[in-house]
This record gives sequence, structure tokens and C-alpha cells, in this order.
Amino acid sequence: MAAEIVNPRGAHGADEARDELFDPAFALHRGGKMAIQATVPVRDRDDLSLAYTPGVAKVCSAIAEQPELVHDYTWKSQVVAVVTDGSAVLGLGDIGPEASLPVMEGKAILFKQFGGVDAVPIALDCREVDEIVETVARLAPSFGGVNLEDISAPRCFEVERKLQERVDIPVFHDDQHGTAVVTLAALRNAAKLTGRPLGRLRAVISGAGAAGVAIAKILVEAGIGDVAVCDRKGIVSADRDDLNPVKRELAGFTNKAGLAGPLETALKGADVFIGVSGGTVPESAVATMADDALIFAMANPTPEIHPDVAHKYAAVVATGRSDYPNQINNVLAFPGIFAGALQVRASRITEGMKLAAAEALAAVVADELSAECVIPSPFDERVAPAVTAAVAAAARAEGVARR
Amino acid sequence: MAAEIVNPRGAHGADEARDELFDPAFALHRGGKMAIQATVPVRDRDDLSLAYTPGVAKVCSAIAEQPELVHDYTWKSQVVAVVTDGSAVLGLGDIGPEASLPVMEGKAILFKQFGGVDAVPIALDCREVDEIVETVARLAPSFGGVNLEDISAPRCFEVERKLQERVDIPVFHDDQHGTAVVTLAALRNAAKLTGRPLGRLRAVISGAGAAGVAIAKILVEAGIGDVAVCDRKGIVSADRDDLNPVKRELAGFTNKAGLAGPLETALKGADVFIGVSGGTVPESAVATMADDALIFAMANPTPEIHPDVAHKYAAVVATGRSDYPNQINNVLAFPGIFAGALQVRASRITEGMKLAAAEALAAVVADELSAECVIPSPFDERVAPAVTAAVAAAARAEGVARR
Repeated sequence: MAAEIVNPRGAHGADEARDELFDPAFALHRGGKMAIQATVPVRDRDDLSLAYTPGVAKVCSAIAEQPELVHDYTWKSQVVAVVTDGSAVLGLGDIGPEASLPVMEGKAILFKQFGGVDAVPIALDCREVDEIVETVARLAPSFGGVNLEDISAPRCFEVERKLQERVDIPVFHDDQHGTAVVTLAALRNAAKLTGRPLGRLRAVISGAGAAGVAIAKILVEAGIGDVAVCDRKGIVSADRDDLNPVKRELAGFTNKAGLAGPLETALKGADVFIGVSGGTVPESAVATMADDALIFAMANPTPEIHPDVAHKYAAVVATGRSDYPNQINNVLAFPGIFAGALQVRASRITEGMKLAAAEALAAVVADELSAECVIPSPFDERVAPAVTAAVAAAARAEGVARR
Repeated sequence: MAAEIVNPRGAHGADEARDELFDPAFALHRGGKMAIQATVPVRDRDDLSLAYTPGVAKVCSAIAEQPELVHDYTWKSQVVAVVTDGSAVLGLGDIGPEASLPVMEGKAILFKQFGGVDAVPIALDCREVDEIVETVARLAPSFGGVNLEDISAPRCFEVERKLQERVDIPVFHDDQHGTAVVTLAALRNAAKLTGRPLGRLRAVISGAGAAGVAIAKILVEAGIGDVAVCDRKGIVSADRDDLNPVKRELAGFTNKAGLAGPLETALKGADVFIGVSGGTVPESAVATMADDALIFAMANPTPEIHPDVAHKYAAVVATGRSDYPNQINNVLAFPGIFAGALQVRASRITEGMKLAAAEALAAVVADELSAECVIPSPFDERVAPAVTAAVAAAARAEGVARR
């Protein structure tokens, strides 16, 4: 191992070799993180004549006659395309398709590890919404679902909507809905723990990008009393004239109180803070929140409110980090959501399926519920089966299941 | 197993269940033939923080700064897209993208089994040459190579040429070049066995589709004395006015003898027959070939000349079938060709690389050379390493290697 690191394959030189020596992340990534595996034997001519010609021809003909058989006799219904254009990768921003591949591979192996779902990284060399939509629509025959990933806002909203209109397989932008589902699950449990019905909570979301918009939507659908979303210019409200179409829509169903002004204004008396912005919130503003506040400061690596500060004012604190309790981690949602959708061959992932996923995820905590545990660990083996079952059932109930 | 077959999952009914009972190909194909596999552990938070956030971010940043690192730290350089539009699948013709998937999956697992190359089936829902080219070019950041498959002629020629102009990874239409490489390898050995230099052979190719055109090109490049190609209307010659651009090009470098007329005219005195047409050749025409003819009747499942008939006139007989000796099977070529090209990160697969592949493949036979063995078995484990090494060396010699 050391020999390989000191004498790395590839065209790169001493700097990278040194990086690898000092950083186990580079050593782990060498050669990539995934591979293809045959699930049938190809040991001899007989095997070959079944898995390939001439045997395969009958299977092809059967699918040509009865198209739905593609789900039975190929891997289509168990494989998801993890699609990005590399425009908004982690906190790194626009690093392009190649540089985004390690994240997409990571996502793919999480799909497999946590949901038993096969996934293929597809990093696209195009940027226009219609180009992305057209390209992925042309790939759709080969996949059972599309997980959009790290596409910058507001293009991500349009890509998802237009693509779902084009294809009959589920399209799911994880940065939006994965985050929203896990946040709602944690919030359900935090509200339960502090004895407050969702309808009585007033929440403030800092950040109106992919995650902020999706969280606002799911909270309103789940019956949260009121939600105010803040972008860099302050509270999103109908009387602002600088809103893009997505924020204008947001203004229509949030901020019932009609607040205007900076984040600090919204925070006064608020029960819930949800940070998906990467900014920081001054302690003086945190201090104005309602008693027993619920603070989800999810920016990575630096939470909007440091957990030590948050704990002075909050009954429950959650972050995006694995080294604090209550990590809001998308891996709790997307593997089970896709596994459930694929299981029943859903044509899309509806709002009801997302709400069901959040409810099932929250329910996993059950008796262990405490201020330090409003959401399960990503390694809790009950999570994916619970989410899968709930999503499959919801798909049937909502009429989007095809089996 | 029986229970699953009698009571199949999926929406299909009694007919398919019966098919499965009677046909092991259906049983084998249930659920598809491939899966994704993580090659790094994801057992705990530490693993997760290396393979995914936050560890992955450093790897992404390194690639953003130094793009060639994508080959070192992702699976890009070991994964090939197996791309089709489903327009010319096996002998089944235009069955569309979904129905072609079992073939593409089969191809993918052959890539893995025989060449150690990962491959992903990409069946495209589009038909225009420029659409296919544009779509695959946009996918190129995610892959180390593109294997085009079962795209109908003459579109396949244009797709390959235009796509290779657009991307810096190898594009290889296996129906053309895989077949051509294996045919040339077998012909080299057959000529050697019968003591004739390649330059003295006159060959007749029946079929001017993907395989026929590519075989004609590689035979001429390899120094075969003369090659005449026949389509349904007879010998392709410069004085015909019904030729498409590809056949017009063909007429420019084949048929030195200036023959005109039907296949039968070309066959008179010819040393070699190569059938990639699916038609049949009357025995009376076969009888007019030169002594010790070499007959490669490769149509599947029915060779153009039945091996029993061919043996009356030929010193060597080859077919496309696994139940006769000398099977001309592409699996002898494509896994090693891509493995070699990927190993040196070739930007394309040159004519020299194909010739080197054929030479290496022919050389594997060595001492075993006989009329029943002019080409190795697909299960001969010496094949892929020999082809891989030869192709990698040729790529370096031709200046298309990047490491």
C-alpha cells in the first residue's frame, strides 16, 4: 500500500503523492469507489448462450412485445441515475462535471449500502436547463429513476419540474427533498418531545436555495403554523419586487404574518430556526426566540449558530455535522425513498410519498426520543426498511404505483 | 426458485410464467444481470467521512485544480458506456431502447468478465445522428470510453466519426471493429496454415453493413491482395450510381480488379469468402472458388454457407456459432481492446491499435494452429491479457496514449 502511495500511478506528481501520504481521503479514492458486478454466471459456452446470444434474443423480443417486461428482465427497475452538471457541488460551488464525480460516486455507493439500490454517476457536460432535461430524458429508458444532485438554484427547480413532465420514472432532487424530508422528521420528533403540536409552531428558514425552498414547502404541507423564509436580502414577502419566480411562489404560501425586514425580525418569538444558508446568526438574535426553541443549524462545516450557543436558548439542537448529536443527513432519506419508489415502479415521487417518508423516519426513533436523539443515526438499520415500506405504501395510495 | 417462476413478480401474466418454466433464458434474466458494488467500506461514520462529506471535498477540489486527476480518483478510467439506440439489435432489427437492454447488460457483463472493465448500459431514446452524438458527448465526463452497439447502418458510421471528433475518450463501434479485428485474426491464421501470404489472397465480403465495411477496411489495411464487397445489388464498384457515401468510399479502396455483377461473379477464383449478410450462397457458386478456400460464413443463426457444404471446398471454415469450430466472436476483441485503451488513457482507438489487437489475438493460437483452430476460444484466458498489452503498446506507439 505504502509503495503505491509513494509511487502513484497516473500522471500526477510529488504534490499528490504527498497529499495521499497525509490524507487518507486521497488514498481511499484511488481508482474510484465503485465497480460493476455480474449477477449471473459467465463461466462457459452454455452460460454465454443464455446471458448473451442466442438466449438473450428471446428476452429482447418479449420486451419489444410487452414493454413493461423491461422491469422484470433487466436491471432498469433497480438502478438510478445520479445526475449532476457540477454547478453547485457541496460547499465548493461550480467545479464542473469531472470534479463532481467523487461526490456522485459517493452518493452511488450510499444508495447501494443503505437502500440496496444500484446507482450510476452521470456528470453532464451541459448547463442549460433544456439541455439537461433533454439529455436525461433520452437516457430514461435505461434507468428506473433519476436523482438530481448538486445543480445550482434556481435552475434545479426548473430542471426537476420539466424533466418529471417528460419521463415516467421518478425524478428527485435530493438537495431539495432529501434535506426537507429529514428536517421534517427531526422537527416532528422535536415538537413531540417539547409537547407542541406542529400547527402551533412558527418556523424561520435561513436560505432560499434548493434546500430552503423544499423545506418551506414540506413544512407547510405538514401543517406547521407559519413559516418565514429569509434570503440574503431578508424575509421573502409578497411586497418585495426582487423575487425570482420560485421565491415569488414561496411568498404566496409562507409568511402568513406578513413580516418584512431582516432575519432578526423574523426570529423574534419564533419557535424554530432552520439554517441552510451558510451564514451566521448573532447570539443576540437567537436570544429573542421563543422559550424552548428548536434550532437546526445545518450549514457545513460551520453551523449558522454554534451548538454551544444554541443550547443556551434551545430545547433541541440539530446540525449537519456527524460530530454533534442529531445530524440532519440526507442518507436517512434518499436510499429508502428510491427503494420504495422502485419497488412499486412509481412513475413519480409525490408530496404524499415525501411526507410518508418523514413520518416513517421520525417513527424509527420511538422510545429513544430525547433532546439528543430526535433523528436516528444513519447507521440505524431500521431506517431504510421503514422509509421504503412507507414510501411504497404511499405511492400505492396516491395512485402512482404500477405494481 | 420454482415458486418464483410460477408466481412471478411484475405485471406480466401466465404466458411469461410459462415461458420461464420452459426457457432458462427468462429465468436467468429475471431482475437483470448486473449490479453496482462499492469497492470501499461504508461501515461507520469514519468511513462515511472519507468516502463522502467532508473527506470527498478535498478530492473534488484537487480534480478541479488538476483535471487529469479524475482518472486517478474516480472510476472514470475503468468504465465504458455501452450505448445504443436499439435500432439494429442482434438479428431482431429495430426493437427500440428498452427491448435492447438485455443485450447491453449482456455486453456489460462480458466487458467485466473478460476484460475487467466496468460497463454501463445506456439505451437512448433518440434516433437522429446529431442527437445521439450530442447526448453521448454530454455524458463523456463520466466515462473512460464509449462502446457503440447495435446502431443501424449507415447512421452508425456517422455517429462514430462525429462523436469521436467531439470527445477525447475512445469511441468504438463494436459491430464494426470488434467483428473486423476477430475476422482478421482468424484470417491471418488461416492464411498461415495454408501457406499463403495475405498479399496473395483475394477476398469477397457478402454484406456492406457495419461489419462488412469495417472488415473490408481492416483487410485492406492488413495488406490483403484484393477485397470485393457485395451488397444486395451485387459487387460494390465505382461505376455504380446507387451507392451511399460509405459505399462510395468503399468502392475507392476495394475491388482493384474492377469486377461488376452479382456475388457469384466475385466468388469465381476467390480465396476467401466472408459472410456478414444473412443471405445464402448457392453451392454452385462456392464450387467456383479457388482451391483450399477460406470460408467464414458468420451469419447467425444460419451461416450463409452451411459448414458441411463449405468443408467440401474449403481448407478452413469459420462461423459465428458456438457449436462449430472457429467461432468468430467479438468477445475475443472488445474487452481487451478497451482494457488496453483505458490502461494508457488513450484518447481514441486507432487503426494501428485494431491491427495490433488482431495480431495479438491470432498469436494466442500459436502451436495449436489447425483447420479447426484458427481462432482461440472465448474462454481462453490468454486472450484478454494479450490483446490488452498489444493495444496499450500500439496506443503508445501511435501517440494517443496519455500515460
